[in-house]
Amino acid sequence: MNVSTCLNILREIKDVAFATVDENNQPQVRIIDVMLVEDNKLYFCTARGKDFYKQLKNHPYVAIIGMNKEYQMVRLNGLVKRLEKQKYWIDRIFKHNSLMNYVYPNESRYILEAFCLEEGELEFFDLGKEPIYRESFSVNKEIKPKGFIISNQCIQCGLYQKNCPQQCISNYQIQQERCLYCGLCYEKCPVQAIESKVL
Amino acid sequence: MNVSTCLNILREIKDVAFATVDENNQPQVRIIDVMLVEDNKLYFCTARGKDFYKQLKNHPYVAIIGMNKEYQMVRLNGLVKRLEKQKYWIDRIFKHNSLMNYVYPNESRYILEAFCLEEGELEFFDLGKEPIYRESFSVNKEIKPKGFIISNQCIQCGLYQKNCPQQCISNYQIQQERCLYCGLCYEKCPVQAIESKVL
Repeated sequence: MNVSTCLNILREIKDVAFATVDENNQPQVRIIDVMLVEDNKLYFCTARGKDFYKQLKNHPYVAIIGMNKEYQMVRLNGLVKRLEKQKYWIDRIFKHNSLMNYVYPNESRYILEAFCLEEGELEFFDLGKEPIYRESFSVNKEIKPKGFIISNQCIQCGLYQKNCPQQCISNYQIQQERCLYCGLCYEKCPVQAIESKVL
Repeated sequence: MNVSTCLNILREIKDVAFATVDENNQPQVRIIDVMLVEDNKLYFCTARGKDFYKQLKNHPYVAIIGMNKEYQMVRLNGLVKRLEKQKYWIDRIFKHNSLMNYVYPNESRYILEAFCLEEGELEFFDLGKEPIYRESFSVNKEIKPKGFIISNQCIQCGLYQKNCPQQCISNYQIQQERCLYCGLCYEKCPVQAIESKVL
């Protein structure tokens, strides 16, 4: 798995959820087409009359998620840039997504503006596999670690191995790629040896 | 179309996107199962170790979206409540969603907490139909109007009818249920007779 494969999964799913924060700091979400994926960049567009457009102008961050039929999930969070050369990008998008001509025929396409996400955090999560598999990637940006680790406070009592719903702890290490981040080991550890990486 | 039918579409899609706002006012999103729909309320759960759980605690608002194979989209925004009687609700959720036992076997299910969305705004959007169809509903809450209207400044020049990508303007009125909210009429009107309802 790598960034390019993950972005192409989003392109294949095509209709994916784009979350933003609105002017009242409330979450907003809508389904948007992934129009192009090129050089590890994801391209999309929206119309100037839409709330989504206003939200991107005020606070240009999105969180994107899609899941395909095989239960492979890709999540991408990052900073969005409005593109220069709008006409070029809108025409390019319509060339590669010909159904758009039914929604925005002829010149009406230019009410749309094209945006690009080129830096962020990406997460791949395969729920179709047993055990589950997850992996994180950076897209031109440093990423923050998530999940839990076992510190050297561990007394090797073995209690967490029994509790873990995914049985993803062995040799006193959490197998990060199989972890649900549910926090049960963190709660159950008798000596508080499990640490949250995000704290 | 009504609230109950829309919520049941989300329950049938089951894996839908839930957006929140995190502690840095950034958008976050993940796919969550709609676990129950009863009496116009939507129930879901998450584990105490997850970022989603922390975000709900800090700022209990979500925006939910799902689209089915017929391109019917349902969006729900609102306030989330953590339920009383957690054990009752988690057991009830597992009874109605038996696959959950594979993910959280035995007692590990109680790392999950159950939440309910009982007030918000709901939007139904049918992209599988031609013309498209949209309708908004309130779920125990007053809702703000969206989209555009034609004011009495209108000089009946007919220009917007030509421009509208969805041909949803007739007799100098916008057919709200067919409008994309793209804003092209708003931009093109020579006398600024089109008003945004959200301004």
